[in-house]
Amino acid sequence: MASDIVLLAAVSVLSACQQAYFANLVGKSRIKHKVIPPAVSGHPEFERTFRAQQNCIEFYAMFLVDLWAAGWFFNQELASLIGLLYIYGRHLYFYGYVQSVKGRLKGFSVCKMALILLLVMSVTGITNSLLDKYVHLNLLTKIRHVVLG
Amino acid sequence: MASDIVLLAAVSVLSACQQAYFANLVGKSRIKHKVIPPAVSGHPEFERTFRAQQNCIEFYAMFLVDLWAAGWFFNQELASLIGLLYIYGRHLYFYGYVQSVKGRLKGFSVCKMALILLLVMSVTGITNSLLDKYVHLNLLTKIRHVVLG
Amino acid sequence: MASDIVLLAAVSVLSACQQAYFANLVGKSRIKHKVIPPAVSGHPEFERTFRAQQNCIEFYAMFLVDLWAAGWFFNQELASLIGLLYIYGRHLYFYGYVQSVKGRLKGFSVCKMALILLLVMSVTGITNSLLDKYVHLNLLTKIRHVVLG
Repeated sequence: MASDIVLLAAVSVLSACQQAYFANLVGKSRIKHKVIPPAVSGHPEFERTFRAQQNCIEFYAMFLVDLWAAGWFFNQELASLIGLLYIYGRHLYFYGYVQSVKGRLKGFSVCKMALILLLVMSVTGITNSLLDKYVHLNLLTKIRHVVLG
Repeated sequence: MASDIVLLAAVSVLSACQQAYFANLVGKSRIKHKVIPPAVSGHPEFERTFRAQQNCIEFYAMFLVDLWAAGWFFNQELASLIGLLYIYGRHLYFYGYVQSVKGRLKGFSVCKMALILLLVMSVTGITNSLLDKYVHLNLLTKIRHVVLG
Repeated sequence: MASDIVLLAAVSVLSACQQAYFANLVGKSRIKHKVIPPAVSGHPEFERTFRAQQNCIEFYAMFLVDLWAAGWFFNQELASLIGLLYIYGRHLYFYGYVQSVKGRLKGFSVCKMALILLLVMSVTGITNSLLDKYVHLNLLTKIRHVVLG
């Protein structure tokens, strides 16, 4: 069992570290621009840094759901790879947004693409599992049999 | 194994799509009311839309925990149905809040009820599992035996 | 299976209740200080209460990932205990922050320590599982054999 989800867990823990790192950078930006809590507005660079982190948080649970559904019901290795792509996209997004408002766009596109891929895999895998459970039809296994002879 | 959680996964992925959809509507409201990032204030309708989405995010991880605990330790089918009720409640809440501040209340009540039901199922199921694990007493199975003869 | 994760599920549901409780306190603070939604600024005490809750949410998914990875791949009982420590830290943090800006620091340190412990357990457990899966080397089992003779 544990080996079936270890890559998903590794990617999840890596992404959690990234979130902690972003939170830390917001704290540093607070000190740099003298924005005293609980204030969340002040210097434009701080505001961009804060919104960048907030946006990462807004999508984080969504990402985890899609990652695990794709990995569990479709393919763990592929889902984990796309999970890494998402983490890379978030890296681009965060640092781009800190630089400028337009700077966030490239990273956001990467994240969006990764989320769409994970979603397609999730829906395919879950649909297959539902068909298997309720009408005893496992399409993915059939396709694999046909393809591999 | 996969078939034991496929309904929970389906509801989770559906709710993730809803979150993505709400995030998209906030983006559209930004354009409509010319609220340039990283600003999160401006036209009252944008502010309501933004707070509606934020509230959905605030409760999302909580919802997932209760959904999975209820589905895993009590009953998957029932938990998934209540999960759908929660998603419907969030739909009412979001569109109601975009219209007016009072408009959010009806949807919020539906979500609150769904969360309470999931919580009751979670606590019942987990308590039963803990009793089973540590004092070898499986109440739910006993009740089922008594009820079904 | 269910008994292998029941403690993690119990701690997760408890932490979800804590999040719901904090959300409720923010609502009460809104009424006390007459901060009408969707506004999130006004009386300093309300602003501190709101930011306290927001910070709890920002770290919540991160906490769940580390808790489950540590519990699944390292040790369920230990991870659950540290999970309780995190919940206690969040309690200190929230009530401290409501009192004063400095009041949040002690609770935050407790949470940070709990997260670091869970992270160390996660990384150790996942690394061990990856070595076991790809090079058939289970270090934790070997260490246990050596220690227990």
